[in-house]
Amino acid sequence: MIQYLKTDPWKVIEEGFHPQHHQSSESIFSIGNGKFGQRASHEEMYSGPHLKGSYVAGVYYPDKTRVGWWKNGYPEYFAKVLNATAWHNIHVTINGEELDLYTIEVTDFVRVLDMRTGILSRSFVAHMKSGLQCKIETERFISMHEESVAAIRFAITPINGDADISMKSILDGNVKNHDANYDEIFWEPVSEQINSGEGCVVNITKKTGFTVAVAMNHQVDQLQWQSDSSKSSYVSSDFVGHVQKGTTSTLYKFVGIENTLYAAADEVGVKAMNHAANAKKEGYESLRSAHCKAWMEIWEMGDIVIEGDDAAQQGIRFNIFHLNQTYTGKDARLNIGPKGFTGEKYGGSTYWDTEAYCIPFYMATKNQEVARQLLKYRHNQLDRAIENAAKLGFKDGAALYPMVTMNGEECHNEWEITFEEIHRNGAIAYAIYNYTQYTGDTSYVLETGWEVLLGIARFWAQRVHWSEHKKMFVMHGVTGPNEYENNVNNNWYTNFIATWCLKYTKEVLMAFKKDHPEVYAKGMAKWNFREDELQEWSLIIEKMYFPKHEDGLVYLQQDGFLDKVLMAASDLPSSERPINQHWSWDRILRSCFIKQADVLQGLYFFEDQFTAEQIKANFDFYEPMTVHESSLSPCVHSILAAKLGYEEKAVEMYMRTSRLDLDDYNHEAHEGLHITSMAGTWMSIVQGFGGMRLENDQLVFNGMLPKNWQSFTFRILFRNVIHSVKVDAQGTHVSHH
Amino acid sequence: MIQYLKTDPWKVIEEGFHPQHHQSSESIFSIGNGKFGQRASHEEMYSGPHLKGSYVAGVYYPDKTRVGWWKNGYPEYFAKVLNATAWHNIHVTINGEELDLYTIEVTDFVRVLDMRTGILSRSFVAHMKSGLQCKIETERFISMHEESVAAIRFAITPINGDADISMKSILDGNVKNHDANYDEIFWEPVSEQINSGEGCVVNITKKTGFTVAVAMNHQVDQLQWQSDSSKSSYVSSDFVGHVQKGTTSTLYKFVGIENTLYAAADEVGVKAMNHAANAKKEGYESLRSAHCKAWMEIWEMGDIVIEGDDAAQQGIRFNIFHLNQTYTGKDARLNIGPKGFTGEKYGGSTYWDTEAYCIPFYMATKNQEVARQLLKYRHNQLDRAIENAAKLGFKDGAALYPMVTMNGEECHNEWEITFEEIHRNGAIAYAIYNYTQYTGDTSYVLETGWEVLLGIARFWAQRVHWSEHKKMFVMHGVTGPNEYENNVNNNWYTNFIATWCLKYTKEVLMAFKKDHPEVYAKGMAKWNFREDELQEWSLIIEKMYFPKHEDGLVYLQQDGFLDKVLMAASDLPSSERPINQHWSWDRILRSCFIKQADVLQGLYFFEDQFTAEQIKANFDFYEPMTVHESSLSPCVHSILAAKLGYEEKAVEMYMRTSRLDLDDYNHEAHEGLHITSMAGTWMSIVQGFGGMRLENDQLVFNGMLPKNWQSFTFRILFRNVIHSVKVDAQGTHVSHH
Repeated sequence: MIQYLKTDPWKVIEEGFHPQHHQSSESIFSIGNGKFGQRASHEEMYSGPHLKGSYVAGVYYPDKTRVGWWKNGYPEYFAKVLNATAWHNIHVTINGEELDLYTIEVTDFVRVLDMRTGILSRSFVAHMKSGLQCKIETERFISMHEESVAAIRFAITPINGDADISMKSILDGNVKNHDANYDEIFWEPVSEQINSGEGCVVNITKKTGFTVAVAMNHQVDQLQWQSDSSKSSYVSSDFVGHVQKGTTSTLYKFVGIENTLYAAADEVGVKAMNHAANAKKEGYESLRSAHCKAWMEIWEMGDIVIEGDDAAQQGIRFNIFHLNQTYTGKDARLNIGPKGFTGEKYGGSTYWDTEAYCIPFYMATKNQEVARQLLKYRHNQLDRAIENAAKLGFKDGAALYPMVTMNGEECHNEWEITFEEIHRNGAIAYAIYNYTQYTGDTSYVLETGWEVLLGIARFWAQRVHWSEHKKMFVMHGVTGPNEYENNVNNNWYTNFIATWCLKYTKEVLMAFKKDHPEVYAKGMAKWNFREDELQEWSLIIEKMYFPKHEDGLVYLQQDGFLDKVLMAASDLPSSERPINQHWSWDRILRSCFIKQADVLQGLYFFEDQFTAEQIKANFDFYEPMTVHESSLSPCVHSILAAKLGYEEKAVEMYMRTSRLDLDDYNHEAHEGLHITSMAGTWMSIVQGFGGMRLENDQLVFNGMLPKNWQSFTFRILFRNVIHSVKVDAQGTHVSHH
Repeated sequence: MIQYLKTDPWKVIEEGFHPQHHQSSESIFSIGNGKFGQRASHEEMYSGPHLKGSYVAGVYYPDKTRVGWWKNGYPEYFAKVLNATAWHNIHVTINGEELDLYTIEVTDFVRVLDMRTGILSRSFVAHMKSGLQCKIETERFISMHEESVAAIRFAITPINGDADISMKSILDGNVKNHDANYDEIFWEPVSEQINSGEGCVVNITKKTGFTVAVAMNHQVDQLQWQSDSSKSSYVSSDFVGHVQKGTTSTLYKFVGIENTLYAAADEVGVKAMNHAANAKKEGYESLRSAHCKAWMEIWEMGDIVIEGDDAAQQGIRFNIFHLNQTYTGKDARLNIGPKGFTGEKYGGSTYWDTEAYCIPFYMATKNQEVARQLLKYRHNQLDRAIENAAKLGFKDGAALYPMVTMNGEECHNEWEITFEEIHRNGAIAYAIYNYTQYTGDTSYVLETGWEVLLGIARFWAQRVHWSEHKKMFVMHGVTGPNEYENNVNNNWYTNFIATWCLKYTKEVLMAFKKDHPEVYAKGMAKWNFREDELQEWSLIIEKMYFPKHEDGLVYLQQDGFLDKVLMAASDLPSSERPINQHWSWDRILRSCFIKQADVLQGLYFFEDQFTAEQIKANFDFYEPMTVHESSLSPCVHSILAAKLGYEEKAVEMYMRTSRLDLDDYNHEAHEGLHITSMAGTWMSIVQGFGGMRLENDQLVFNGMLPKNWQSFTFRILFRNVIHSVKVDAQGTHVSHH
């Protein structure tokens, strides 16, 4: 754990500048509005280690990969969210000296991300080498109200003398992804223009051909425009002024952004310029208050209030805040990247995280259309999933959804994951089930979702095989959710969810046939469906092999698990944790240690199919061996622990998931935040401590109040009714709106 | 199979130029002398697809790799034999028109590699666009007598008119490896000089700092020197002449080569120049006949004569020829790259092939010092093997030899091989055993080899673990010789050879202690050896788990093998073969198909520990599932088939191994030849059809004559006695010299 931030219920606060943690701060203080987003790099020049990143939703590049040269079926590229034109740069000189926090003395530094309003600000005193001291105040936001607009206020007040101030406001498209396999630049310049501080840079991505325009416009106080300059993919304007001691000079920078997901290529420049000009016309304060108001509305429905534990409170709000910054559900071409707009690791693409972890959050805090958009995203990519399966030798419309994707094509490139971590297919079916159960809206599955289910069911039916030796169906060569095991046989979770998919698809198809026989017949003809496929599925459902412990309660993670040396993770020396940063891969694989919930993930998804005794036995067996080196792990353990009454474990796991990045448990916050697991944090309050379950089309709540907390409160949107839930010492209180 | 070459007992012959197979020809017609070597690219300019490659033994580059970015322990580079200064280029114009076999008409083309003399030659008629026809005759060799010298003769005779001939003789150091991960040039220029056709190019490798000088010198007939030119890392000299119809103009190019493995950096240029000048002084014919004589001497001892089957005869000579071109045993820093000097795939580094396949050939056809050099190579790298094991978490002097290496450091970068294909360690111990048994020379193992054995034994003792569930020692997470299974538990071969290593090391240490108690005590102190380690080893030997079939005869390749769908490879459609070019990796892994001998490799190595019934049962079980997509597979199957009296299978496998490249079974000859498996071909004659075994310090022979053969004859050097073995219809005849 690395703790340098202040605990506060509504704010993330860095007091005193921590250059050694600056790259983590850049992640943690990130801002965004679902359409674009940015790491919290300084506006002014900064010569210390940093990762400047501005990202535009849906704009990606297929970065060539070169692995597995003698193995077939690997994708040729990894789709990456692109580091795009940097728009926040405002380089400052004071009496000719560059303002650079890495080289000058800084006092009274405070950086604040106000989560209630979505405003990022800094305030500090810069001690220039000349002896001059200046107070610097900066503020910026990416508007939640005008989704193509961002704004910056940059103010300088000389404290102990007059100053010649110069601010160079820049749009710089000469950026590289930090994570570029061949150190390539992914962009080509299209045009740049600048005229008295009104400028624009237009770039186009290589290969994918996305055109992105970023424009700027300015307003000044105590400064005046001096000059413009431009070069390839870069424009800047200089604003200068001679400023008296005690007087504040301010630059307001208005940024407009547009891209070809929403406009024609020859219009993006003009549109971006208009966005910036309109923003300037509206004025900084007015833009700012519309933005804050939009955030207030989000919190109105989405907030979770925890009384009595500010760290827990800050944690959950931090998670909810970033989830809202990352995805708004307005566009079915977008999805939820594991790092959102906060970093480049994992490429910013879509993983099974969306279906397994994110859907419940968006379902319960937004209109159900938002979750439906996420389901549509996969339906739109069904053809690609069928192609993906065909590349691996599957036929007759079997669909394998990719491990990682932007446009539906597989991008991942480790065989043990790409080809074998196929349980992801189950999560995509599960999300359809989950949505249908929660919303009561059967229209999606019967109109559209059944096609996805059919493709997935066909995949599983071909992926299992009959073992003459066991006289059962088995599934070989898979990687379960616990990626610390590769290429295993009969991963219990995968066998279970595969069988469940077959059952559920069968049910759906039977209901479909019964209710809409003609539409059904047409649909089945389209997909060449033969009803004897159902009989094959039934046979598999009946004869599937599930590895079990002799005790009859514990499900074995995979064949041979009991041959391992079984020990508790707590018995490992702390110098060897996390093991993925200390052990070689083979050692990790041979060990019993579990990266993230695997058998327990199945018990969480399908809780109603197991007795409390079974859940307890498996939790007691697996929890001690789980190292939680995936961000997606603690939330599931927290929910199960709460159910089993293991309060201490539930709280420990909750704190870990909710403050994973704030406290940087895994020493990786600098790479970006764990956005998708933040939805898991939300679940660990609502389903864990709140005990929310769906029973017979009703929500039930069974609250557990952690002993340090006075109460916690959340709101749930369920079938058009808002439920307010408060859990306190007196119990669980539910009211409706 | 691709067959375009003529069958001949002593020659490889291409009649008619086959541009579509030219890259395969470049591999197949390669020449070398153990110190340097070259693909058979044309001397003149060639605009068609080709891979020009000149390689210098022991000169390598650590090419940066980028895989497994979230897994620890991967090496940072892959050591590659370097494509070095091209010295054979002689660009030709005839009446101003470039001679380029890809664009002009060519008739009467014959390319011949005379394996008896090691001479590569071409003869053809070039039909220039002007209508002029010229007869072209070229010849080149890399001297087996003067190991730093090569020579080329290039002759042109205009047939139907006079011609202005120009020959530009070039040394070109601006070469790239075809196989460069980041398209980097691995060399930096040091110097170049040229003066009236006497020139030199000196380059230094980046990072590793090997300096290589290549020099040239010339003699002409009917031509005269015209001019020189040079640029960075490149020199050339032009020779011109006006030649009458029917008159032959000839350029003799003498090449000298030197590098910093054998000379100081500031001397390599002068030395290379001297080599070339001395060669010129000696004269082409004299050099040529010394070279041919050296080859005659090699064949005197090393030839295998097969009467009655020219294809079989050509095959075995092709194999013996290339083995001799690749490694001569003069330098313990060198080893046998899987492609020798014939291509870049696999990087040209050292694999377990050397110990498992090559040692017997060199032991029986060369002085025993040659095999001992190969053993020393590993002993010299023991420290690196200990470092390599330490990176994977092993301690106390445990040694894991690398999967691929140049200097002892691991270079391989696929986790399932790098970290898991650890059976290679066993082969290194086996080679010491094999050498000691065959030569009767116990001095190596007692003076030096025991240190290697101790490191290897310690590795195995730590790599197994006790299964509380099985109450046996097991070994998890390995890849056996059959690389079409990854990360399996209890690979029978690996478990077996690990246990054997413990037994053998124990025996050796006990013998050492008995015979040389003082030296033993000193040695053990050096390695902190505790005799209770022996007790641990004994426990493992006693309690090791070996997966077995219920029939009691078949050893299971690994846990769970019987759960697979078992079928014969012959039932696969031929359109899907080889499976590694048609199936995705997961499908290969799930299948029963075996890339190369695995259980059978163990039965081959340790034949005397198994009954004929056991060997037969395992061969009958595994042979049908073996797809032989490794070059190292058919030889083992051929030997076992011969032992079991399966003549047809033995011959099929022999033809496959001996003509693997000549007939291009796996469609990959263009990447280079399978040098190390060629030693397996030799074994399949000597140990297979010849039935050679070592029994009680005596060689015994038990010949089987394939029915199309009239006889076969080979010579074996055994403990200073040469045995001539002839197998014919009358039986097996052995005579001594």
